[in-house]
Amino acid sequence: MTKTTVVAQPLPLLPWQDRPATSRDVVWRYSANPIIPRDAIPTSNSIFNSAVVPFKDGFAGVFRCDDKTRTMNIHRGFSRDAIHWEIDPRPIEFTGDPEVTKFEYRYDPRVIWIEDRYYVSWCNGNHGPTIGLAYTHDFETFQQLENAFLPYNRNGVLFPRKLHGNFAMLSRPSDRGHTPFGDIFYSESPDLTYWGKHRFVMEPVGGWQSTKVGPGPNPIETSEGWLLFYHGVLTSCNGFVYSFGAALLDLDQPWKVMYRTAPYLMSPQTLYECVGDTPNVVFPCATLIDAPTGRIALYYGGADTVTGLAFTYVDEVVEFVKRNALSRS
Amino acid sequence: MTKTTVVAQPLPLLPWQDRPATSRDVVWRYSANPIIPRDAIPTSNSIFNSAVVPFKDGFAGVFRCDDKTRTMNIHRGFSRDAIHWEIDPRPIEFTGDPEVTKFEYRYDPRVIWIEDRYYVSWCNGNHGPTIGLAYTHDFETFQQLENAFLPYNRNGVLFPRKLHGNFAMLSRPSDRGHTPFGDIFYSESPDLTYWGKHRFVMEPVGGWQSTKVGPGPNPIETSEGWLLFYHGVLTSCNGFVYSFGAALLDLDQPWKVMYRTAPYLMSPQTLYECVGDTPNVVFPCATLIDAPTGRIALYYGGADTVTGLAFTYVDEVVEFVKRNALSRS
Amino acid sequence: MTKTTVVAQPLPLLPWQDRPATSRDVVWRYSANPIIPRDAIPTSNSIFNSAVVPFKDGFAGVFRCDDKTRTMNIHRGFSRDAIHWEIDPRPIEFTGDPEVTKFEYRYDPRVIWIEDRYYVSWCNGNHGPTIGLAYTHDFETFQQLENAFLPYNRNGVLFPRKLHGNFAMLSRPSDRGHTPFGDIFYSESPDLTYWGKHRFVMEPVGGWQSTKVGPGPNPIETSEGWLLFYHGVLTSCNGFVYSFGAALLDLDQPWKVMYRTAPYLMSPQTLYECVGDTPNVVFPCATLIDAPTGRIALYYGGADTVTGLAFTYVDEVVEFVKRNALSRS
Amino acid sequence: MTKTTVVAQPLPLLPWQDRPATSRDVVWRYSANPIIPRDAIPTSNSIFNSAVVPFKDGFAGVFRCDDKTRTMNIHRGFSRDAIHWEIDPRPIEFTGDPEVTKFEYRYDPRVIWIEDRYYVSWCNGNHGPTIGLAYTHDFETFQQLENAFLPYNRNGVLFPRKLHGNFAMLSRPSDRGHTPFGDIFYSESPDLTYWGKHRFVMEPVGGWQSTKVGPGPNPIETSEGWLLFYHGVLTSCNGFVYSFGAALLDLDQPWKVMYRTAPYLMSPQTLYECVGDTPNVVFPCATLIDAPTGRIALYYGGADTVTGLAFTYVDEVVEFVKRNALSRS
Amino acid sequence: MTKTTVVAQPLPLLPWQDRPATSRDVVWRYSANPIIPRDAIPTSNSIFNSAVVPFKDGFAGVFRCDDKTRTMNIHRGFSRDAIHWEIDPRPIEFTGDPEVTKFEYRYDPRVIWIEDRYYVSWCNGNHGPTIGLAYTHDFETFQQLENAFLPYNRNGVLFPRKLHGNFAMLSRPSDRGHTPFGDIFYSESPDLTYWGKHRFVMEPVGGWQSTKVGPGPNPIETSEGWLLFYHGVLTSCNGFVYSFGAALLDLDQPWKVMYRTAPYLMSPQTLYECVGDTPNVVFPCATLIDAPTGRIALYYGGADTVTGLAFTYVDEVVEFVKRNALSRS
Amino acid sequence: MTKTTVVAQPLPLLPWQDRPATSRDVVWRYSANPIIPRDAIPTSNSIFNSAVVPFKDGFAGVFRCDDKTRTMNIHRGFSRDAIHWEIDPRPIEFTGDPEVTKFEYRYDPRVIWIEDRYYVSWCNGNHGPTIGLAYTHDFETFQQLENAFLPYNRNGVLFPRKLHGNFAMLSRPSDRGHTPFGDIFYSESPDLTYWGKHRFVMEPVGGWQSTKVGPGPNPIETSEGWLLFYHGVLTSCNGFVYSFGAALLDLDQPWKVMYRTAPYLMSPQTLYECVGDTPNVVFPCATLIDAPTGRIALYYGGADTVTGLAFTYVDEVVEFVKRNALSRS
Repeated sequence: MTKTTVVAQPLPLLPWQDRPATSRDVVWRYSANPIIPRDAIPTSNSIFNSAVVPFKDGFAGVFRCDDKTRTMNIHRGFSRDAIHWEIDPRPIEFTGDPEVTKFEYRYDPRVIWIEDRYYVSWCNGNHGPTIGLAYTHDFETFQQLENAFLPYNRNGVLFPRKLHGNFAMLSRPSDRGHTPFGDIFYSESPDLTYWGKHRFVMEPVGGWQSTKVGPGPNPIETSEGWLLFYHGVLTSCNGFVYSFGAALLDLDQPWKVMYRTAPYLMSPQTLYECVGDTPNVVFPCATLIDAPTGRIALYYGGADTVTGLAFTYVDEVVEFVKRNALSRS
Repeated sequence: MTKTTVVAQPLPLLPWQDRPATSRDVVWRYSANPIIPRDAIPTSNSIFNSAVVPFKDGFAGVFRCDDKTRTMNIHRGFSRDAIHWEIDPRPIEFTGDPEVTKFEYRYDPRVIWIEDRYYVSWCNGNHGPTIGLAYTHDFETFQQLENAFLPYNRNGVLFPRKLHGNFAMLSRPSDRGHTPFGDIFYSESPDLTYWGKHRFVMEPVGGWQSTKVGPGPNPIETSEGWLLFYHGVLTSCNGFVYSFGAALLDLDQPWKVMYRTAPYLMSPQTLYECVGDTPNVVFPCATLIDAPTGRIALYYGGADTVTGLAFTYVDEVVEFVKRNALSRS
Repeated sequence: MTKTTVVAQPLPLLPWQDRPATSRDVVWRYSANPIIPRDAIPTSNSIFNSAVVPFKDGFAGVFRCDDKTRTMNIHRGFSRDAIHWEIDPRPIEFTGDPEVTKFEYRYDPRVIWIEDRYYVSWCNGNHGPTIGLAYTHDFETFQQLENAFLPYNRNGVLFPRKLHGNFAMLSRPSDRGHTPFGDIFYSESPDLTYWGKHRFVMEPVGGWQSTKVGPGPNPIETSEGWLLFYHGVLTSCNGFVYSFGAALLDLDQPWKVMYRTAPYLMSPQTLYECVGDTPNVVFPCATLIDAPTGRIALYYGGADTVTGLAFTYVDEVVEFVKRNALSRS
Repeated sequence: MTKTTVVAQPLPLLPWQDRPATSRDVVWRYSANPIIPRDAIPTSNSIFNSAVVPFKDGFAGVFRCDDKTRTMNIHRGFSRDAIHWEIDPRPIEFTGDPEVTKFEYRYDPRVIWIEDRYYVSWCNGNHGPTIGLAYTHDFETFQQLENAFLPYNRNGVLFPRKLHGNFAMLSRPSDRGHTPFGDIFYSESPDLTYWGKHRFVMEPVGGWQSTKVGPGPNPIETSEGWLLFYHGVLTSCNGFVYSFGAALLDLDQPWKVMYRTAPYLMSPQTLYECVGDTPNVVFPCATLIDAPTGRIALYYGGADTVTGLAFTYVDEVVEFVKRNALSRS
Repeated sequence: MTKTTVVAQPLPLLPWQDRPATSRDVVWRYSANPIIPRDAIPTSNSIFNSAVVPFKDGFAGVFRCDDKTRTMNIHRGFSRDAIHWEIDPRPIEFTGDPEVTKFEYRYDPRVIWIEDRYYVSWCNGNHGPTIGLAYTHDFETFQQLENAFLPYNRNGVLFPRKLHGNFAMLSRPSDRGHTPFGDIFYSESPDLTYWGKHRFVMEPVGGWQSTKVGPGPNPIETSEGWLLFYHGVLTSCNGFVYSFGAALLDLDQPWKVMYRTAPYLMSPQTLYECVGDTPNVVFPCATLIDAPTGRIALYYGGADTVTGLAFTYVDEVVEFVKRNALSRS
Repeated sequence: MTKTTVVAQPLPLLPWQDRPATSRDVVWRYSANPIIPRDAIPTSNSIFNSAVVPFKDGFAGVFRCDDKTRTMNIHRGFSRDAIHWEIDPRPIEFTGDPEVTKFEYRYDPRVIWIEDRYYVSWCNGNHGPTIGLAYTHDFETFQQLENAFLPYNRNGVLFPRKLHGNFAMLSRPSDRGHTPFGDIFYSESPDLTYWGKHRFVMEPVGGWQSTKVGPGPNPIETSEGWLLFYHGVLTSCNGFVYSFGAALLDLDQPWKVMYRTAPYLMSPQTLYECVGDTPNVVFPCATLIDAPTGRIALYYGGADTVTGLAFTYVDEVVEFVKRNALSRS
């Protein structure tokens, strides 16, 4: 197994639990899952599909909290250990141009540090779903930017650094409903206001990823390429199944997929993933990485109801992606 | 909190269990749920969406029992404590005009005392779903009346007294399948044969009640208006979720909605509500009320498979509805 | 051929044209069709599916005129010969309870004289389609009554006299869109406010009437039963085809179908029936009858765009219905 | 109860567990279900809808193992007790004409001994689903034959002996997706290459079998007719439910259904049947029979994820089918 | 242009009209089209998608005549010049096994001479559409054979001679409705009772043939391969368009497509092809060929309403197919 | 009527025909329509939805020509009188980045002069429909730019000058099929590579524009605002109807709709608009304007088959839009 180098800081505080002796899996679940129950704040119906980052001497996060009206919104939270979270019961209030900050719903956030600040991206309801963007320095005030794209789009995920001098984003163009299709595209922007140079990245193939695919956590820069965890959806005889796998994208031209897992890395198999507001969903939205050890803590939503935590090693995942790659066709 | 007066009799026998110390919910579940398992009678596949009333020195009820052919029919039952039920394994036989008593299926009954007898209403299959009506004095013989409406309709729910000299009913016009829409309407009848003066009451709005809404138990007369528990349906990324909330309707013109909950009061969260023949369903069909204490015992179906029991106080519900009302738009 | 007696007045002014020598059809078209073009009034996009009656020394009618916003509304009109019509460019204004006269759209009117006045019924948009009802003595003022039914319903057609002391109506329960199903039902009302005693009449069968059926012009009383022209819809390999046939209903129990045509009487075959806003539609809404001669002039919409006229003899139609009846199954 | 004779060998090794004292069911579950977990081989996502036969001094089987790419394929396995199975982690490789052995997927196998060898039939992806056929003498080499039918077909199930000198098969013609319809047909072949003499057997009726029906395990020859376990699908308010019942087919003309259960024999009620990749599925694919005792061990898939085992007596099932038969209409 | 030899008899009586001077088309229409109007027999609503063959000193044919109930059936007819037809107003009555001759509908016949008799194939309604088969010596008596396949299938088209000692057929597996998909398959039978050795031939590609494809007239044997005219369907912004093109199939292995037209040969462009019961349809079902001159007369349905005639030369068509072939991909 | 000033050059060559004496329409058809038949070039199946501009001493255009494979592509053409066109039988070849110039199809072009060159925009198939962009100086060479947006989008229409220093575009976000919805949005770009500042403009309302709306020809700058002709789609009982109307947008903030026609300006009413590959379509894509006279020549597609020409005066259209505006709600 080649040693894969991760471009990231050391993160000794990273939450961690060794792989169970009985497990053969590359990605394994935290034994005390779910780490965030559906009712962690008084108004919440469910908390899932959320994003965390190292912040100060601990961690901060942006959490999707659907309240009991089943309105979807995003909240900030803080933690010392990245397992036990204090989530602000009030949704984040964004400042910015009123033409842009008005919204119908907000969900499925991602958070990433780029250069000098944290950027948040999410699915933003504004005459249909599009990609909302904002930045914060302190998780106190959030400055909202222009929506990245025209509707209809979901799963906008920024790269952790500029490419070709531009901000770079993956996303999944959609339609107005529960889109039964989904390809991943790549786009660039010089200023986070105007976006272009759109390139196709990948589309559904057979099996667990046969109905749609979409980017998960922000891509991780490694010596072997951008490591992208992504979700895929299969249409069973009785509904959908949301699993996730991973891909390696070319470092300079990330729309070129070098490797992509044929098998999933994780599929919904526990009760908290199979039973809930949306049955049979594991949906990853964030990772924490400790570069020296190659440890990855991965946060994912279970059944669109709770938040779970899983673990892996970057080396093992990269190895797995290469060894179990879809054959090119 | 204003004291809300309920127009109802004392019912000291009302089943009751105090709110758990850890709960912040306005409506809380009975700890020994489900009170009626799916196989409470030898032929039953499931028993749910059923109605109970005080009767003699105990209680009587009309129960939806789908048998193992999955034929839907309604059965009477009796209980001393309203928790443990003896359900007649034979479906109710109705007397009446043969043009009217012929049927394809019967389901989702409601029962209410009006003036001098008990009235039963249900979804009656007669060239499509419509509202069946009958009365009984003793739960021994049931006299069936004309179907209230032309097909296609479900969830016909009578008011406990006449309005403007007429019987009054809420219902949800539907179509021939698993209708993906649903508004609540109000209608009157001088004689329970001819119905008219139809008025629109409410339609789906966002969140948990965004796909369809329908009336639940018979409305409860209070000093603050008619208290109506109603179910709402949300279309998730993988199927439906049936929750319930409540509304206050104008006492004289019940088609005028004064308040209506933005959040739900209860959504499917336990295994017996999330897993079963129809996943993710809580569906209320009956309440018992003890006027002096304001206690309400609410009966609901879980996952279209079993019957659950929940509790609340009329004061708290009314307060909750007002404080958490949808803003008028 | 038995002589069929019609219960109707002499109408010597009835428009008429003999069957072309080359035709074998029971119902034949007027050679100068369409009699009303799409732009007969300045604002109209189309004029079709309309109703006419004898009035004073000529005729009056209620016409569906979709304007160029494609808003559907109904207008009155007058004629000396029932072929050339003066249509009022302003929609009819109805007086009545404001809860009832508010509407979203009005279309497909029928008009009938019952006892002492003219009654108009139409598809009335009020939180979905239902049956609007009004009466007029003079085609100057129109008094609107309660909507007959809860939504969703179309094609409400009154009988020309009371049955069992009640007003009687046929209609077709529907849903909220372009309903792909449709059965005919019968209902009664003592007062035109409250409706009940709903009875199933007929449903789609094979061929031209395999997708839906609905009542056309008001039923005609004959010695052989109620003669009902009705439309039927077939789903072809590329859209719908709307044709019409006829049935004989029991005089006392009109929900009993004695005979019903297996073949259609007319299907869309001319350019003005096949090409227009809704291709392939003939849709009858009114008849004029001259009892002594048994002549029937039938008015129908072509392609939802123009109004056509056709002719037949009551004797021939009744004979045709009997000889070409669907076999009972 | 008449004694029903089974045409089969003694099978004293048949796995067995007596009916629990508390059970009134004709078919009851093995207490240690599921007998095969989803991950019984390293690559498997799920193992279900599989077939077993007596083989040498134990048992052999062909198992549907979906791997973690969610590719569907079939594997052989062996067991001493028919409960604990060694499944070959490599899919079966078939020899034969390359035009025929190429495939897109393989699933839902059945295995049956006819005359001198074992025959395997399965749903074979070859420009859409059709019926794959092969034989083996030893479960080492498998000779693939021509696909039985043109696409689109599923659930091809051979009879254990020839009829009228021909091989005989039940199947369920389908379409290209998750077919929302399904009738059972009967076909014959003189040589397993050319098939014909197709006869309709049965179609969906109400209740648990109202959306589609398909043959389950290979028919069992009894003195009362061919005993066929078959699955049926109901469309609930929130997805499908797959249950199973049984029928008795005429011994000489198996397309003539003598009796067919109105109630199901088993419906999904346990967690391992209700929760999994396809919620709410019990799907039987194989039986073992001990003729002297009339004991039947029935193998079925749970939630398209695991394999379960259930038990019954042929006498009881036959009696149940007769006593609970659908009335002829 | 290579000279293409046709394996067929001389047919000097073949109807013919030279290509108009202004036309650049390989296939051109008869100037007096449609040759058969919709009402050529008293009961017919439409006559189209029909088949003709040389017979005695003239021609015989089998015609799809939908009557005015819109029941689909097939009738025989005779002609001296293959343009003016006498069609028997009574549907063909088939003799044979009552299990097989019972039917729900019959449509889209093809007729072909093989060895010693005429064979008729058609879409036969028997618990869904399948392929009906019969033979006749004299167009007086027709002996029906077993249905070729299980439902659901349409467009069964026999080859004019045996291949590999077997009868050979092309068909298009379908589903129960107006199938939105369609591939062509090849099958063989030693005896016209049992069918097998199914091989995939071709599927939809882009453009006019992007939704479904199906075989048209019986294949024509030429020195360049089997010449197959086939229809293709495109889904426009407002419905379907049925056009036709041609392919050359390998003489020995007809499932191998050597060439297939990228452009269509004819698309619906005249009023009688664009306007009718099914708008925008040209659908070829038969050809007549004069081997010495290479003239082909092609019969096709227009708008599912009338029958049209078109002409071409075998040389030109073969040349066109080769020069305008889809590139292999 | 206020005099409306148009910001445009004189164009004395503009094709023109006075309004017929009998017409009351604001927009009237050219009497010799269609000006471009479906087969104007040898390979074409249809020529429609095309764009023209003044060029040198005549006119140039970009035309949608679907060929007989039904492949959609765009061709240049030239004309002296803007009525008789020479269309290049070869599609336009674009130069540019190979990642961008690769395509699946091209259709529905618009052409506009901005500052120093002509810009072409069209629906560009590149992993789904998006907006293709290119410029030309001479209609000889065309330089393709980046696709404006991520898929899925149609009807990208540039403004004739920069706004706020940016290029400006209207478009209609879509999905992958024949989108049954459609809103118009506004976007800006500093460089025609990166796009942002997306603003919602308008959505479907009732009547002819109730299913979707999309921008037609490039907006025309007038003293009363941007004059935008736009198409709207209605879902009839049997398919779609495509009509067009007009709106006035705020000159500085074009996403603010000042007026928008309630009635359509033109709907499909002639045979060449109602009958063709897509029945019932008028679809405008270009205008020519003569500023001194206020004359507008409007080019539109008929039935997705041919190109038609219509005329109006800017004053009359602006007046009509204001007088017949939708009421604000």
